[in-house]
Amino acid sequence: MSRPILVVEHILSANDRLAEANRARLDAARVFAVNLMASPGAGKTSLILQTIGALKGRWRIAVVEGDLASTIDADRIAAEGVPSVQIATGGECHLDAAMIQSGLDRLPLDEVDLLIVENVGNLVCPAEFRLGVHRNVLIASVPEGDDKPYKYPPMYRGVDAVILNKIDVLSAFDFNMEYFRRGIEALNPGAAFFPLSCKTGEGVDRWLDWLEKEMRTYREG
Amino acid sequence: MSRPILVVEHILSANDRLAEANRARLDAARVFAVNLMASPGAGKTSLILQTIGALKGRWRIAVVEGDLASTIDADRIAAEGVPSVQIATGGECHLDAAMIQSGLDRLPLDEVDLLIVENVGNLVCPAEFRLGVHRNVLIASVPEGDDKPYKYPPMYRGVDAVILNKIDVLSAFDFNMEYFRRGIEALNPGAAFFPLSCKTGEGVDRWLDWLEKEMRTYREG
Repeated sequence: MSRPILVVEHILSANDRLAEANRARLDAARVFAVNLMASPGAGKTSLILQTIGALKGRWRIAVVEGDLASTIDADRIAAEGVPSVQIATGGECHLDAAMIQSGLDRLPLDEVDLLIVENVGNLVCPAEFRLGVHRNVLIASVPEGDDKPYKYPPMYRGVDAVILNKIDVLSAFDFNMEYFRRGIEALNPGAAFFPLSCKTGEGVDRWLDWLEKEMRTYREG
Repeated sequence: MSRPILVVEHILSANDRLAEANRARLDAARVFAVNLMASPGAGKTSLILQTIGALKGRWRIAVVEGDLASTIDADRIAAEGVPSVQIATGGECHLDAAMIQSGLDRLPLDEVDLLIVENVGNLVCPAEFRLGVHRNVLIASVPEGDDKPYKYPPMYRGVDAVILNKIDVLSAFDFNMEYFRRGIEALNPGAAFFPLSCKTGEGVDRWLDWLEKEMRTYREG
């Protein structure tokens, strides 16, 4: 009687392999890449527009724009004059590493310092797919409610920073900031946290400071 | 040389078969079932609480509560004193027909007139999974923005009614009602539409009227 030979190996999924290839390619070109995730309407595109407006004099920025179907966001980004690629997922609920690969194919990586990826609006599925980026950022928003970390833990657990957008309407909603922060801390101790308003600009500078610091650390590393 | 025999058949997916079985079971017990879908934080639980509060004197109501993990919503529903079942999807981004089946197993269907299903907060994936219910309803909300029908067409296309919640904060947001409605009409002509505020109660009566009319039509049919 022969016994089966046990082969123990760390098996990466097909997506993880592609994510690693994306990362290697970004690193070869010294492109710092950030993936923005959020519920529909939390303000991903608005934050990208604020970020481009503030940083485009200092850094060369490009955008990969993920959407189910429409070009509404891609058109707004393109109007800023930065290189951008739209990925129409054709109904898929998240970006995956293969879509990012195809985005990288169409961007002049040697002329880019910061690549911003706008994921599909979804607080569940994008958390499961590594893309190969350097930082993952979640944009929450006040009207969604202060209980979201408790209800959508995988997304809150997996990010480097949480932005809380739409603080200009805090007084119109029953939002307990302490409860929200405790939820984040329990899942993701030490995650960076930036309450801000893309509409009024309040608090955006702290997000930009963090982003530039992360970029500089990366480029000096 | 023999040729393969071509078997042409309408093949239902496993999920669709279970959805049909759920429907048959609901019909046998004369339970009218409604599936509520929405982005995270649009107000599904708030609408359910409003609906229970207004209708529980006239109809026997039960709730199937879908959540990734927490019992926050299920606890709020249970406090209303109606039969409710929580389905913890364990990270899954949508309810499917098998989960509803398991919910029905745990409810006293012969003592229920109206079953409300609260899907996982997600504007993409739930649209792809039939549950066996009689009506599908989408809850949008003002802070998400007026462009959501254009960006998330599968969800807007597949529902019987669209609720627009949080109209009490309309003045705080740049929301074009005509643009929003045109987007719905283009995808889903004739869909019922109910702007309302679960917070102030404004407009909720029109939703309740529609729901009761649909229920009566079903029960007389």
